[in-house]
Formats: sequence, structure tokens, C-alpha cells
Amino acid sequence: MKNYLLTPGPTPVPKEVLDAMARPIIHHRTPQFQTILKEVEADLKHVFQTKNNVLIFSSSGTGAMEGTVTNLLSPGDKAIVVRAGKFGERWGELCDAYGIEFIPIDVEWGKAVDPEVIKKILTEKGTLPPQKLAGPPMAEIKAVFTTLCETSTGVSIDIEAIGKIVKPSNAVLVVDAISALGAVPIKTDEWGIDVCVAGSQKGLMIPPGLSFVSLSQKALEMVSSSKLPKYYFSFSAHKKSIEKDDTPYTPAVNLIIGLNEALKVFKKDGLENVLSKHKKNAQGVRNAMKALKLELFAPDAYSDAVTAVKVPEGIDGGKLVKTMRDKYGVAIAGGQAQLKGKIFRIATMGHITPSDLKVCIDTLETVLSDMGYKFEKGVGVKAFEKTL
Amino acid sequence: MKNYLLTPGPTPVPKEVLDAMARPIIHHRTPQFQTILKEVEADLKHVFQTKNNVLIFSSSGTGAMEGTVTNLLSPGDKAIVVRAGKFGERWGELCDAYGIEFIPIDVEWGKAVDPEVIKKILTEKGTLPPQKLAGPPMAEIKAVFTTLCETSTGVSIDIEAIGKIVKPSNAVLVVDAISALGAVPIKTDEWGIDVCVAGSQKGLMIPPGLSFVSLSQKALEMVSSSKLPKYYFSFSAHKKSIEKDDTPYTPAVNLIIGLNEALKVFKKDGLENVLSKHKKNAQGVRNAMKALKLELFAPDAYSDAVTAVKVPEGIDGGKLVKTMRDKYGVAIAGGQAQLKGKIFRIATMGHITPSDLKVCIDTLETVLSDMGYKFEKGVGVKAFEKTL
Repeated sequence: MKNYLLTPGPTPVPKEVLDAMARPIIHHRTPQFQTILKEVEADLKHVFQTKNNVLIFSSSGTGAMEGTVTNLLSPGDKAIVVRAGKFGERWGELCDAYGIEFIPIDVEWGKAVDPEVIKKILTEKGTLPPQKLAGPPMAEIKAVFTTLCETSTGVSIDIEAIGKIVKPSNAVLVVDAISALGAVPIKTDEWGIDVCVAGSQKGLMIPPGLSFVSLSQKALEMVSSSKLPKYYFSFSAHKKSIEKDDTPYTPAVNLIIGLNEALKVFKKDGLENVLSKHKKNAQGVRNAMKALKLELFAPDAYSDAVTAVKVPEGIDGGKLVKTMRDKYGVAIAGGQAQLKGKIFRIATMGHITPSDLKVCIDTLETVLSDMGYKFEKGVGVKAFEKTL
Repeated sequence: MKNYLLTPGPTPVPKEVLDAMARPIIHHRTPQFQTILKEVEADLKHVFQTKNNVLIFSSSGTGAMEGTVTNLLSPGDKAIVVRAGKFGERWGELCDAYGIEFIPIDVEWGKAVDPEVIKKILTEKGTLPPQKLAGPPMAEIKAVFTTLCETSTGVSIDIEAIGKIVKPSNAVLVVDAISALGAVPIKTDEWGIDVCVAGSQKGLMIPPGLSFVSLSQKALEMVSSSKLPKYYFSFSAHKKSIEKDDTPYTPAVNLIIGLNEALKVFKKDGLENVLSKHKKNAQGVRNAMKALKLELFAPDAYSDAVTAVKVPEGIDGGKLVKTMRDKYGVAIAGGQAQLKGKIFRIATMGHITPSDLKVCIDTLETVLSDMGYKFEKGVGVKAFEKTL
């Protein structure tokens, strides 16, 4: 059975990337690997749209998220955490693990945060003028943690607007862009993202195992005075190394070689073109779902990286995903945590092509129909094709 | 130019492992990946020689080392750190990063620690009876951190003897076996190793990017009460997951698939046979060096995983390694830190074959001769062949 992978990470890995990773391994302290690292660093900056260093860690995205908390903050520091889904909650869990007090902004799953709420809190807590302290005195807020694309809900958060709010404050803006980088537009420097966290297995089209962090000057200053404990994810150690095209510890050599190959796609096809292809694909998926009379989970704040769709009344969501995967070889994602069985998710990032998506929608139609859902067979695929 | 990799990590990756990693990627929350993880877990236990869980992290070995410190200890805990090289020093740096006070046992580079020194300290500090406190009162020692094979010096430390000393105490024995697992004999349970840390890119024959930790019952009890902060490397989270053939965060899927393939070699060839092949190869390398009138750096405590050799008087060690690599495609390692330029290191673990080693010794002879070192050409290769 041919398998189609349409999950929001890992995403399919292009053949040329798999081939590059399958070449005999080389040692990491060699001019040959340094050359690769230099290229990767330059190409990552382009995809991040930043002039600053991008640090590379051998870990999944969560590792880089942890490093962000421990490298920016010190005991007693306060933060704001936007929790609009499972991954926003992870910022909160990380702050908890390191004893960082934070003000949570809990957003209903499926909705995006209103940037004005962040502005209000920053102003009330004296991080933004006027210096009006509400409630008991609280230290200035040092960081605003948010997500760009909430993979768990398919929601996109307006980072550009949040950037404008946070920029004049003393706080840094930290964005989990793990499911966003290379998938949807991100302008790290222009939008004022101080720390942009990304992962390898999403828009960047390589297997999981690498994570990335870009650091603004404002963030770097915080790093230099941060007192939380760290070692493996030390930003200072990684920055010192990457400036010499090196890594502080043995890196995941073959993943970096794969990344080098994958990043060439962005250069060859053009970043704008890659992103607009994803956007078109996502539009097509949304139109297909509407044609099938399926309800989008995040109609007002959808992301072009992953589309979350409500499982229709009377259909077993778990069984739907399982049947598509096990009987037809089409892997989409179900819901996580409180959304288990209630939504399914189709990714439109990385190496996912219109043909893959047509197969996916066609299979979805077949399985929905077999499960008793009533609709006119073929309208989903037709709506997708029409969009393109 | 054909390249030969004889560095002590990364080591060459067998073709069948590279091929397995180059197959189209699969999602990690699937029965298909669960089956792989289940097999990997069972096969790792066999290589570790343990009945306990082996946790798998997507990181290099240093990440698992950090996790060991943060998951075992609490603020105020004390430790012993054996520093017999760069990697022993890393345990000390990790303790420093988390504010753990430790008693260093500094061993001259090239020598192994005398287990009796550990016994003496444990006894003096009241961790072993009789309860005799020397100096100002100090909390009981909670952990003894050591290295099995010190990659930086080619030294092997007698873990079996240290295990006998630490076992009756309340402290846990933590062993960095990153350059040892799958390369030299390790009997985790029998020797009383409470935490055995390993990496993927050495004896296990896969690229860097995975690290492993085995946990004894004694270690698990410490984990359950540990108060140092952690998240990505949380042993509790990983243990809970692995028991359900799952991982808490997105794992490095294709590295684990490669590992699954690599571990089959140990089953097919037999762990004992694999280890005795490495031993024979290392013996051959040592005999070749002696025949070339080169001095071993650790004549009294050599490891069968990597052989460190003194660069002879008047020869530029850096140039030797560079010439072998750039002119002949034979990658060996130079010295690290204070040994830079003073030693070179040849690995005999993983997928390094006698033919690779013959090419290596032959090339070493050619380059040494070109650099003006006087010896009878061919005696090195001959001594190696004779050993085998």
C-alpha cells in the first residue's frame, strides 16, 4: 500500500533530502561539515527573515522551547503566556517547571488571542507606559510567550500585531513557530519577534530531531544576564559555536546534511512561492471541507499550515482517522487532549503536494460515506481542484 | 576519494541502517512506529544488559547527561565526580550549572581512577559505614559520576570494581558509557550501574542525535523525589511514555528506525561476538603502534573502543591528522583540550572493520614517513595482521 503523510509533523521528506541523509556519515569537526553548517546558517536566516544568528539544537522543538525559558529568564522574573491550545499550554508548563510566575491568557480552543489583551496586561503591570500597577506590586513582565500556528487547533495568531505591542516594552516577544516556519509567512525582524522557535519536521521538510532559535539584540541582552540553570541548551555556548561554524556538542550530523538539502528548495523555488503554494493548498482544503458541509474548527483564525475540521455529528472521529490510515494508507491527524475524537487535521505544509491532498480528500469522502455521512460524493475533490 | 571514518564518534553507519533511515518517514503516533519502539526497547535492554527500562532522548549524549543530574538530584545534594578527561569534566560542569556541590577526583589524563579513592571518600563522608565525618559536616553523597571509556584519553575505567564499592552505600552510581555501549562489555545490572548513559553515534552505529539512559530501582527512587528543574529530559515523563511504547515529545523518528536496524546486528552476530571483534581490532591497533615504536597514551588503562597514541617528538600532530584526512581520506581524531596536537586517536568500535583499520595504519605509516618519522615501513600493518 502506498502511504500518504498529511499530518502536521512529521511531514513528508523529499527524496533528495532522504538521499543526502543516506550518504556515508562524516565527522562534525571537519572543514567539510563546517561548510555545510555555514550554508545552513545563511539559508536559515533567509527562511526566518532575520539578520541575527539562528541557533541549531539536536532535539525536538520542545527542547528549544525549554532553552528559551531557561536562557532568557531569572528566578523572580514574570511572564505572560498565551494559552490557545496544547502548545501554548506547554509554555506555561515550562514556566512552572522553572518556577517562573506567569499571567496566563487563556483563549478558547479554536480562537486566536486578541492582541489588545496583551497590551492591557503589559500596561497594567507597568511594562508599558503609563506605569499603572493593578493589584499587589509585581515585577515587570520580562517575556510574552505565544504560538504562531497552534497545531492542536489549526489557529493562526496575529504575531505582527502582537509584535507592535511588545516592541516598545521591556519585555521580549517569544514565538513558538514550530508549525509555522517555512509553512506560513514569518518576518522575524520586521515583526519584532525576539525569539523565534522552530522545528525540523514541519515546513522545513526534514525528519524530527532538530530545533532552532533566532535571537534579537534585546533577547541577547536578556540571555547575558539570565540566571536560570541550563547546559545542553545554553544559548551562549551555541552562539559562540555557530559564529565559528561549529556546535558545542556532537550535532545530529545527517539531519543537518538533510536540512542543507531541504533549504535549497526554498532558494530554488523562492520563499514567497513556497508559501503561496501552501496558502493555495490550504484554501483548497477549506473549500473542500465546506463543499462537504463539514465545519472548520477555527473559521475566524485558520492557519494555512494545518486545517482543523469538526468531526460531523454521529461519526466516530478516532475511527475515521484510523480507517483512513490503516485501510487506505492516508495519514491525517486526529484531535489532541480535549479535542480527541472531535476534530481531524490535515496539514498543508512542507512537501505536501496538491496530488497528495486530492488523494486525502478523496479518501476522506470514501470513509465518511462508508461511515454513513450524507453528502454528494466528489464535491470535496471538485472544490479543491477548482480552488487551484 | 573514498573516505574512511575511524573517529571515536560519529562512527561509520552500515548501509542497511542508512537505507532504513532513507525510507519515507512515518508518523510517530501510529501502531507501526509503536512496534518499532517496542523492538528497540527490548534490544537496547539486551545491549545494556539490564532488565530495567532504557529511556530514549532525541539529543546528543550531553543532553542525557544533563537529564541525569537534574532527574536524580535536589538542591543541597552532594556528589563525587571522577574527572579523568574532558568527559569526566563535563559531569562537573553539569553539577556546577545546577548548583550541586561535588568532590572532584582529578585523575591525570591517561590514567584511570583508583576505585579505592571513591571508597575512601564515601566512607569519610558517612555514605558508607563507619559514619566518620571528616571536616565540616556535609550531607551524604547522593551520586558518584564517572566515565567508562574516556574518549578524550582512550582510558577505560573499572566500573565493575566501582560498582561493588557504591552498591552498599546510599549513593547511586552514574556511568557515562557514551563511547562504551556496544563497543566494550557493560553489565549494567550485574555491575550495579544505577544510571548508564549512552549515545547513538558510537558503538550503536547510527548517526548522532539519540541518547539513552537506563535506570535502576535505586535510581528511580531518587528520580521520584528529585527537586532540580527539568522538562524536556524528564525521566518520569519518558518512563511513563516508554512503558506504553510511546515518547512524550516528537522523537527523532528516522534515527529510531535506523537504530532498530542497527540493533539487529547485535542480535544476528551476538553481543559477545561483536565485542570480541572490537577487542581483537583494538589489540591489533595497539600492536601496530608498538611495532611503529609509537607510545600509547594510556598503556596501563587502555580502552578497546578507542586507542590514544602519543604524537612522536618532532611531528606536528595537527598536521598529521589533517593530512591523513584531506590527502588520503582517512579520518582519525586528534587530541582535545590540553592534548591538542599531542595525541591522535583511532576508534575500534561500531562498524569499523579490520580492512578499514589496515587502510588507516597503512596511511598513518605513509604520512608519518613523509613527515620525517623513521621506522621500517610496513611493520605496523604487519603487526595488525598478525594479531588478527
